[in-house]
Amino acid sequence: MATKSTTATKANSEALFPSSKVAHFGEDKPLQLDAGVSLSPFQIAYETHGELNVDKSNAILICHALTGDQYCASEQPVTKKPGWWETLIGPGKPIDTERYFVICSNVLGGCLGTTGPASIDEKTGLPYGLNFPVLTIADMVRAQAMLIDYLGIDTLFSAIGGSMGGMQVLQWASSYPSRLFSAIPMATGAKHTSQNIAFHEVGRQAIMADPNWHGGNYAATNDIPSKGLAVARMTAHITYLSEPTLQRKFGRQLQNRDNVSFGFGADFQIESYLRHQGSSFVDRFDANSYLYMTRAMDYFDLAADNDGKLANAFSGTSTRFCLMSFTSDWLFPTSESRDVVHALNATGASVSFVEIESDKGHDAFLLNEPVMISTVTGFLNSAAEARGI
Amino acid sequence: MATKSTTATKANSEALFPSSKVAHFGEDKPLQLDAGVSLSPFQIAYETHGELNVDKSNAILICHALTGDQYCASEQPVTKKPGWWETLIGPGKPIDTERYFVICSNVLGGCLGTTGPASIDEKTGLPYGLNFPVLTIADMVRAQAMLIDYLGIDTLFSAIGGSMGGMQVLQWASSYPSRLFSAIPMATGAKHTSQNIAFHEVGRQAIMADPNWHGGNYAATNDIPSKGLAVARMTAHITYLSEPTLQRKFGRQLQNRDNVSFGFGADFQIESYLRHQGSSFVDRFDANSYLYMTRAMDYFDLAADNDGKLANAFSGTSTRFCLMSFTSDWLFPTSESRDVVHALNATGASVSFVEIESDKGHDAFLLNEPVMISTVTGFLNSAAEARGI
Repeated sequence: MATKSTTATKANSEALFPSSKVAHFGEDKPLQLDAGVSLSPFQIAYETHGELNVDKSNAILICHALTGDQYCASEQPVTKKPGWWETLIGPGKPIDTERYFVICSNVLGGCLGTTGPASIDEKTGLPYGLNFPVLTIADMVRAQAMLIDYLGIDTLFSAIGGSMGGMQVLQWASSYPSRLFSAIPMATGAKHTSQNIAFHEVGRQAIMADPNWHGGNYAATNDIPSKGLAVARMTAHITYLSEPTLQRKFGRQLQNRDNVSFGFGADFQIESYLRHQGSSFVDRFDANSYLYMTRAMDYFDLAADNDGKLANAFSGTSTRFCLMSFTSDWLFPTSESRDVVHALNATGASVSFVEIESDKGHDAFLLNEPVMISTVTGFLNSAAEARGI
Repeated sequence: MATKSTTATKANSEALFPSSKVAHFGEDKPLQLDAGVSLSPFQIAYETHGELNVDKSNAILICHALTGDQYCASEQPVTKKPGWWETLIGPGKPIDTERYFVICSNVLGGCLGTTGPASIDEKTGLPYGLNFPVLTIADMVRAQAMLIDYLGIDTLFSAIGGSMGGMQVLQWASSYPSRLFSAIPMATGAKHTSQNIAFHEVGRQAIMADPNWHGGNYAATNDIPSKGLAVARMTAHITYLSEPTLQRKFGRQLQNRDNVSFGFGADFQIESYLRHQGSSFVDRFDANSYLYMTRAMDYFDLAADNDGKLANAFSGTSTRFCLMSFTSDWLFPTSESRDVVHALNATGASVSFVEIESDKGHDAFLLNEPVMISTVTGFLNSAAEARGI
């Protein structure tokens, strides 16, 4: 059974030959990883928008979420869809590309051009597969810092991201406080909870249960673990939406029929929607990357990395923080943001926090949420004034 | 790869040759199904505890949940574990088997002896597999009513159950109001929500994605879709527990190690726990039954079956109701019970309702919850007095 679609091949080709800009780091610049090994050579695929000013003080790093990519404000080459954060980023928008120099890189371990499990291991001439080292959020951020160096930037004006992107923002603030003027972590937390890990583990088991996964070596075959990856995506997708959103959008409405079929087809609209989410994801994402990204999120625990005290992660910071959570987000509930706010308050940091009323669930940070947009605008304007931009 | 364990074979043997009592219904007593077909012959495997009194007025029907069985108060023959509701049922317990005659049958479509997809279709001499008709909760209840007839009982003193068991209780009250003196639906609702359907659909997709499922005909092979069924169970299991329970029981604690492994093994206790839940489930449950049970729950919508008005499902009822919900149950939140209470109030029914403070999630109804136990005791005592038992 052929399960490798043309688009999936295109996704794989973007992993190896990205459409975006690429920064190469040779054997003289190995990336030290938390797993105790180093990665070398490696590359980072990234996009930029706007111009770096003479002071090099106007750079904003956009950190993408689990299944996001560097195409935050330009067309995604595989799906041909607009950038995933065009509500926020562009000329005249809250993250104004006529004012700021916006950088967005595919994370380490990703599948859109930055080195990851689909990349070729120069030592073997074959794709890494599961020989790729298991990563942490701190590793991703370490790679981003090397990209910032490469671009000749000392200090970021801001780092902004939601979900796994928000974890990266928090890690930036902890690892490189002097290189970060401001930070906007959204819909995130300083750790992955037990329930978060549980959902990720289900997704990984679904992928690894697919015989087309071949122990991670599917690149050597004509298969991809499309069914397992689709199930993983379907599970995760439920957690991105709130129950009220599901009820409002789909409820118990039937899909193109007047009565239930007394069968196992997609009788309900919600079933049809989830199946579509699963199958379209397979066309644009790599199964091994999904394993690595979810694992990095599971491992994230800023308090544990700092002697069990979250405040230690930010001690003495002069970064200005603006956190946002969404009332109906049950994956990263407000309590997780509040823990970060308390830790920042304990260190005397400059922090503002907004819990946004929304019934759109975790994915609200990707949507047109007026309060989120006005909060980003206001916070960045005020920070830009302080920074003299 | 052999995936059929000895215990799984034992489970299959219980489907065909149950250890419990069996009521046979021959071709003269076909079961009319909502799918528009009839099932004949068929059998119901059941257990009883206590004695039916001379008036035949002390019978209580226990309705089990999705993965439950007739062994509510006696050892389960496959797992050798005690009955699943021994906290409530037994001599001197709230459902006192010295006072009441307790009946618990494996639901239609189940895999512990009542006719289901693992049973032999007499027309072909082969297991039904997906040729088994898709069922509804009303079909299950219709079969139970035939069992009650078979046992010579006209009116049940009570029907009691949680989750899918609670759906059956509500269906009993709607289908056979004159045959039901009292009803205790717990942790349930009058419909499956969009999010409920979504989680079930993920489970079904996981099973059907497993190549060992063989389109439902795995009985003809040496395989069982163990990996797919395990993933389905893992997903569902997360929804049975609350986030606080997961955090308290497992948090981010590691499994038999001091540090993360930088691999994809079960580093975290929650991963190990879920994997165990998945693999032990495969040993005791049939994958096709799982498809049929989840589908029946998805189809359940008592309001839709009654011209869109839930109150119509209970009009003129003289059954006494006692509903219970649990504060941390996010699968069947209190709002779902409240909808039923409002509908019952609108028909002038006798109804009491308790929302029980618990952080144990949906599975609370299976656990030692003092308020639940005292509520069942009090309600049954009062109903028994009214019934003259």
